Amino acid sequence: MQLGLSVSDSDVSSFTPLVVLELADDTKAEAITWLLNRIRGKQQNGGAELLVDQLLFPAQDGQKSNQNVFVVGSTLQRLLKGAEDVGLFKEFQDGTMRGFTYANRESFKDFYGDGEGFLSDAECQYIIKHELDTLRAKNEEHVPGYPKVKLYPGKSVVRRLQSKGVLVQYFPLHNKEDLKRLSFSWYKKIKLSFQPLDDIRHYFGEGLALYFGFLEYFTFALVPMAFIGIPYYLFDWEDYDKYVLFAVFNLVWSTVFLEVWKRCSATLAYGWGTLSHKKAFEEPRAGFHGALGFNPITGREEPVYPSSKYHLRIYLVSVPFVLLCLYLSFYVMMVYFDMENWAISIYNENPNLATGILLFVPSIIYAVVIEIMNLLYRYAAEFLTNWENHRLESSFQNHLVLKVLVFNFVNCFASLFYIAFVMQDMVLLRQSLATLLITSQILNQVMEAFLPYWLQRRRNKKVHKRMRRMMGDKELPLLEQVQLETEMNTYLGTFDDYLEQFLLFGYVSLFSCVYPLAAVLVVLNNITEVYSDAFKMCHVFKRPFSEPAANIGVWQLAFETMSIISVVTNCALIGLSSQVKAYFPESETQMILIVVAIEHVLLAFKFILAFVIPDVPKHIQVKLAKLEFDSLEALKKRRRALGRLVRCYGSSDMAQLDCE
Amino acid sequence: MQLGLSVSDSDVSSFTPLVVLELADDTKAEAITWLLNRIRGKQQNGGAELLVDQLLFPAQDGQKSNQNVFVVGSTLQRLLKGAEDVGLFKEFQDGTMRGFTYANRESFKDFYGDGEGFLSDAECQYIIKHELDTLRAKNEEHVPGYPKVKLYPGKSVVRRLQSKGVLVQYFPLHNKEDLKRLSFSWYKKIKLSFQPLDDIRHYFGEGLALYFGFLEYFTFALVPMAFIGIPYYLFDWEDYDKYVLFAVFNLVWSTVFLEVWKRCSATLAYGWGTLSHKKAFEEPRAGFHGALGFNPITGREEPVYPSSKYHLRIYLVSVPFVLLCLYLSFYVMMVYFDMENWAISIYNENPNLATGILLFVPSIIYAVVIEIMNLLYRYAAEFLTNWENHRLESSFQNHLVLKVLVFNFVNCFASLFYIAFVMQDMVLLRQSLATLLITSQILNQVMEAFLPYWLQRRRNKKVHKRMRRMMGDKELPLLEQVQLETEMNTYLGTFDDYLEQFLLFGYVSLFSCVYPLAAVLVVLNNITEVYSDAFKMCHVFKRPFSEPAANIGVWQLAFETMSIISVVTNCALIGLSSQVKAYFPESETQMILIVVAIEHVLLAFKFILAFVIPDVPKHIQVKLAKLEFDSLEALKKRRRALGRLVRCYGSSDMAQLDCE
Repeated sequence: MQLGLSVSDSDVSSFTPLVVLELADDTKAEAITWLLNRIRGKQQNGGAELLVDQLLFPAQDGQKSNQNVFVVGSTLQRLLKGAEDVGLFKEFQDGTMRGFTYANRESFKDFYGDGEGFLSDAECQYIIKHELDTLRAKNEEHVPGYPKVKLYPGKSVVRRLQSKGVLVQYFPLHNKEDLKRLSFSWYKKIKLSFQPLDDIRHYFGEGLALYFGFLEYFTFALVPMAFIGIPYYLFDWEDYDKYVLFAVFNLVWSTVFLEVWKRCSATLAYGWGTLSHKKAFEEPRAGFHGALGFNPITGREEPVYPSSKYHLRIYLVSVPFVLLCLYLSFYVMMVYFDMENWAISIYNENPNLATGILLFVPSIIYAVVIEIMNLLYRYAAEFLTNWENHRLESSFQNHLVLKVLVFNFVNCFASLFYIAFVMQDMVLLRQSLATLLITSQILNQVMEAFLPYWLQRRRNKKVHKRMRRMMGDKELPLLEQVQLETEMNTYLGTFDDYLEQFLLFGYVSLFSCVYPLAAVLVVLNNITEVYSDAFKMCHVFKRPFSEPAANIGVWQLAFETMSIISVVTNCALIGLSSQVKAYFPESETQMILIVVAIEHVLLAFKFILAFVIPDVPKHIQVKLAKLEFDSLEALKKRRRALGRLVRCYGSSDMAQLDCE
Repeated sequence: MQLGLSVSDSDVSSFTPLVVLELADDTKAEAITWLLNRIRGKQQNGGAELLVDQLLFPAQDGQKSNQNVFVVGSTLQRLLKGAEDVGLFKEFQDGTMRGFTYANRESFKDFYGDGEGFLSDAECQYIIKHELDTLRAKNEEHVPGYPKVKLYPGKSVVRRLQSKGVLVQYFPLHNKEDLKRLSFSWYKKIKLSFQPLDDIRHYFGEGLALYFGFLEYFTFALVPMAFIGIPYYLFDWEDYDKYVLFAVFNLVWSTVFLEVWKRCSATLAYGWGTLSHKKAFEEPRAGFHGALGFNPITGREEPVYPSSKYHLRIYLVSVPFVLLCLYLSFYVMMVYFDMENWAISIYNENPNLATGILLFVPSIIYAVVIEIMNLLYRYAAEFLTNWENHRLESSFQNHLVLKVLVFNFVNCFASLFYIAFVMQDMVLLRQSLATLLITSQILNQVMEAFLPYWLQRRRNKKVHKRMRRMMGDKELPLLEQVQLETEMNTYLGTFDDYLEQFLLFGYVSLFSCVYPLAAVLVVLNNITEVYSDAFKMCHVFKRPFSEPAANIGVWQLAFETMSIISVVTNCALIGLSSQVKAYFPESETQMILIVVAIEHVLLAFKFILAFVIPDVPKHIQVKLAKLEFDSLEALKKRRRALGRLVRCYGSSDMAQLDCE
């Protein structure tokens, strides 16, 4: 919280602006007054007790900028109390992680004086977001000035304003000094060191830090594969027994590293206090609709949607739709192979320049069609998942991820599977694999970082120029910063980043016994990926709100599923190879049976390995058990102390204390 | 607690005896006095605050019976407070299950007056066991009178006395009236109804009630299979496509019913309050030894044993030993087949009566050897698991179960696998399967219920006669009851019962497409099994202490693994069948590939099914979530109330209340 600039023309005392709220330009004044009063109001009266201020951009030759931009901040005390509300875990004096309580604040490590610097920026912003999100309607029947924007007691005000378009966006502000420091230690110096994960977590929160942790871990985990893969390329080893060896190593290794990652992520999450962090009760997402009823858990009034309808929508509409899309994707692939055959036949009939160029046309068309299909499907998946009407954001995300995952998997790997198992052309498989992998890597880097960066730079320059023109020489860096960040693109979460890694993992493991060099390419890609992703987070996108995360969630499952599928594909590939067939000249049947048996043994081995390796390292387990034991003992002690107190002071006040 | 008999010649007021403690006959008087004082002592002084009395058996013509038998009981208030200590969950006024607290006792359903009848007998006995087990040494360095039986602060006194043989046994007493009522509703009337699971749980506790619930559920789940299996037997259907149909139905069905069982068991466990019951911190088991150190979790002094040694013992000794035993089992099986071949060849050379009898000799020898091997292995497994030095009883049990499970699986099914996949003789397979199944069922029923019952009856008569002789006409039913029950066999837990069901499940599912009648036989067996098991629990064994259980634990995993293995075996059997081969006259390879593909699809389908069916039914999930939400809200309220109190009364007493 270094950014101690006061808001120049405001009437309240100066505070550190942490979050920006942008309301629609034409928002009615009474709605604004009401909202600001609610945000500033005392907590006893259902307010958020936060500090909020309007940013007034000087009007400028006709082109009026949005006047309804506000910055929100908070006093330190309010933030500390909020930290207790959101259930933050912090390091205690004795080195364990404990749920922060305001009353015991001074027993926590790194709490000095009034607590300045105890909470990271990302945590402060997360707390403010939580307080804004849980600002609930009281007796208002609608938002003042908007008779159509209905409210009911307990409804989150911000969610309703958002879903009705009154609240355009709210996002956390960058902290320029911290950002400078972070970006220097992260990617600006040329060095061979680990990423500063703790600093990343400090600035961007746990969800993102875990992504970068995983990216780094995954890259390191691929290094042994890459090293073993290089000689295959250098010496042109074509012996299949060597490939078999590589495949087996690959399969066992991928199981081990996925299991070990769980332990790493548990260690990271424990240190960050998110491993035992219990999720607060999740609010319905902004888009959720239904007849007003009562939530059976909280007893609060909120929209209720029958779960039978929801399941019907999933199983009768979404699942068939996804299957149809998969079929379409197969169909397009078949058309591509037909086109390719046709092009080859024409070229063979009459080999000249025109027909030579024609050879490339099917691939180009197919690549373009795949991209278009991915894009269209993404929209359709989002629409469908929205229409399924999930009550919780987490459930919405899981269903969206699953849909997109399955389709992307098929779209990316279907042609490879076809080449491998139907055409059984290993040379073509190797070529296609290499082409696909390299193309997708290049495309990704361009689409993901360079293009947005270039657009962002142009926009920056424009805003900078406009601000200069507006204000002459007056230095108003906050106004300019807010103006700039308002127009930045929003980072849509780690979804696409994980998806990319997931597909890369597929390229490495699915056909590893055919193309051992894939690991090398992926390692090279990921080294640049760290830089471009880091750069993108720091300079291309709006700062995202931090998300407490204890693990990589559904992606762990996705990676594990991929590693199971790759056992099957690799065994099948080995079975298809002519070298292996040569070992069993008399009986193909016997060969197949042996390969199937090996496959089953490998799969069983994977499951046993996953079962035997504990998901949480021993020392973390001990710390967690100690915490639980201590809190049980404290509960017992408290009950005894309460008993004494009741005897001393009478029971009226106390009875309610023990009503868990 | 109907058994209101006072202990005739005691000096304390009468109480309901619940638990019997038997010390060695030659226990030193000072040790007895010390122990009784500790059991009776106030809780503030580290006592258990229980009631305890000596039972004096009249001396009898030379043959003196053990005089060191004690009965333990408790006041109602002590039991209610103990219920809070062990974390019992009870039904609240609003129908949810909540952790019982003494302060709020009157808000719980079925709590009337002073709480008489609120706790079941089994719960009272469980509480007394817990209080006895957690009776800890204070400053005593050894048990008085036994300088060699060392103690250290915090060591469980009862565990130490047990491991040194001073405490011979302690067990809960039967309640004759309740037992009569239970056995009548359970198995004495001829009826078609469900078992009285709630009454069983009331009397024997949750662990056993879950076993009987599972037994019933499993039997009902087999009924559809049995019905579908009957026509195969009646009409001698030999078409393989019909068998294939049956196998596919069988596989899908077994997945579904195992998944649904999880939901059933969650529903049962929720109603019994064990689903959210957190296990109290587990004490080291009686046999655990190591250098004295500090437990990193509790900070208490206790034996510490390096986990590296423990892992070395498991992986370097136990695992190789088990593998060796498995090899031996295979070897014996091969010898058996050799012997059988030899017998057949002799018979074929010279078919007469002597050689005809010789034909049966290998089978008989093999059956006997298998039984002997099972027995020897069981001892070896117990010895090894003990030697591995597990700190916790639960970990000991899991390792023992795993060892015995694997060996029993191989021992029972190895010959079937050999016949099916090496000899490929389907007729012999069907014969062997039927023989093994029927033999093992008959043997089990005899060994498990009738033999112990017969022994027990003889013993009962003897004790009865002796007591009559001792006391003449004086009626002392308690003395006689204690005498009788002391000599009853101890029920060693549900292990053998589950193991039997597990093996039966194997007979039904592993080769279901060859012998559909197996389901019928198992259903018939299980119907009698319910009766014989119930009878055995009520009349053959000592009453066991109740064990809170939320599910069937490691057995769920065992059954699921079996159902996965059975997918593989059934697919393989179908692939081997001549009818299926006839469909692919031109290419055996193609047939195998198709069968393998089907197998993979079935396996994938199983996993998806297991993933899609939620383990806990929706309405239980809602109740659990509500409970959690309520307790979070109560915590917030309490913090606020505490804040007020601190302001009112000063903070000295209060500060400690909030130190979680």
